[in-house]
Amino acid sequence: MTYCVGMRLDRGLVFMSDTRTNAGVDNISIFKKMHSWEVPGDRVITLMSAGNLATTQAVVSILEERTKAPGERSPSLLEAPSMFQVARMVAKVLKDVIAEHDSAGMQASSAFNATLILGGQIDGTAPRLFLIYPEGNFIEAGDDTPFFQIGETKYGRPILVRAYRPDMSFADAVKLLMVSFDSTIKANLTVGLPLDLQFYEEGSLVLGYKSRIEANDADFQRISNGWGEALNAALDSLPDIEL
Amino acid sequence: MTYCVGMRLDRGLVFMSDTRTNAGVDNISIFKKMHSWEVPGDRVITLMSAGNLATTQAVVSILEERTKAPGERSPSLLEAPSMFQVARMVAKVLKDVIAEHDSAGMQASSAFNATLILGGQIDGTAPRLFLIYPEGNFIEAGDDTPFFQIGETKYGRPILVRAYRPDMSFADAVKLLMVSFDSTIKANLTVGLPLDLQFYEEGSLVLGYKSRIEANDADFQRISNGWGEALNAALDSLPDIEL
Repeated sequence: MTYCVGMRLDRGLVFMSDTRTNAGVDNISIFKKMHSWEVPGDRVITLMSAGNLATTQAVVSILEERTKAPGERSPSLLEAPSMFQVARMVAKVLKDVIAEHDSAGMQASSAFNATLILGGQIDGTAPRLFLIYPEGNFIEAGDDTPFFQIGETKYGRPILVRAYRPDMSFADAVKLLMVSFDSTIKANLTVGLPLDLQFYEEGSLVLGYKSRIEANDADFQRISNGWGEALNAALDSLPDIEL
Repeated sequence: MTYCVGMRLDRGLVFMSDTRTNAGVDNISIFKKMHSWEVPGDRVITLMSAGNLATTQAVVSILEERTKAPGERSPSLLEAPSMFQVARMVAKVLKDVIAEHDSAGMQASSAFNATLILGGQIDGTAPRLFLIYPEGNFIEAGDDTPFFQIGETKYGRPILVRAYRPDMSFADAVKLLMVSFDSTIKANLTVGLPLDLQFYEEGSLVLGYKSRIEANDADFQRISNGWGEALNAALDSLPDIEL
């Protein structure tokens, strides 16, 4: 499994993904699930993936090849006129890759399935964030649903639902995401450190702060260790129940 | 879906279950998923169920009939010499009911499946808590894993993992369970109020405090409303992250 979150803030976009892949519990590996493309001053695009690793790697490779030999293989992510067209392009590649390995490519339960989070900004338009389904269709984040999760989403959802605010700083968003990821990692072996983190600051049109959070990362350790205590204090702060 | 938690404390056992059943999202109903049997001074047995409602109702009805006409239908829950034998009995009934409707009763993915939490005490032995699988086998809670969840378990797990303590009072356990259930209910339509709650105080050999928590329950409202604030305060209490 996998856990990735893409978040729309007033300041821009935040992406976090884990790096664990597994085929059974006895075959685990580390793979990057976050990929970015950048044309400084023109566009920044970030993609995160959950699902069949062969599928998601093929999708990224096809998109990547097109950006490198744009004359030969089109359309390219770097030439699409809008994030909506980028999303259509990525979704089409995803659907085609799945269909190639699965004669009935429309089946949602296909073993070759993958789900993607795509976000970014193209000069002259607002930042946008999409969730792309294996069927090749997609939805966009809005004010009512300002973040998307893919993979092992349930453990880390309650804290996001309760504590997300669109006006939070990037640092507060990272704190929130670390707690969400830590809750998931503590409960499920198929999500694991290190984590990849990336910001995109609205209007900057260059890739923002980027970091890999290793298992021994001091901030992550402090958040992980502190959260148990903080939660217990939160519970204690609730009114007592009369039985 | 469903959400039930059975918990072993130093003081005894605590059980909480939701009451929502659904066949699709457009067909939801309220059914009790917690059932108890009691012979004051001799034994107390509580059963919670998740899964196919026809299966779990059949299991409870079969167990119930046996207790009412013990001469005709044996073995009865009320005569088993130990909680282990009670668990074997319940597991056998569960497996038989599933097999009856499913020619391949051993398949874990059967649509007729159900999972049970069974807890209680029989005079002269310690309280015990079991998780019974649809295959008819079961595991017992111990010091390392002192609580079991069935149904929609993931949303509410992180708080249990972090805040459970074996020496907590019944009132604190209820607070913790309310938070765990509230987190689940907020994120998943297939788990819903009202909730059923029951304690068993070790050694008492009578059913303990029992209550149905309705949607307008003042305590639950206070916990649910307070938890968002408490979580945000907990996040704020964590060390800031240097980017």
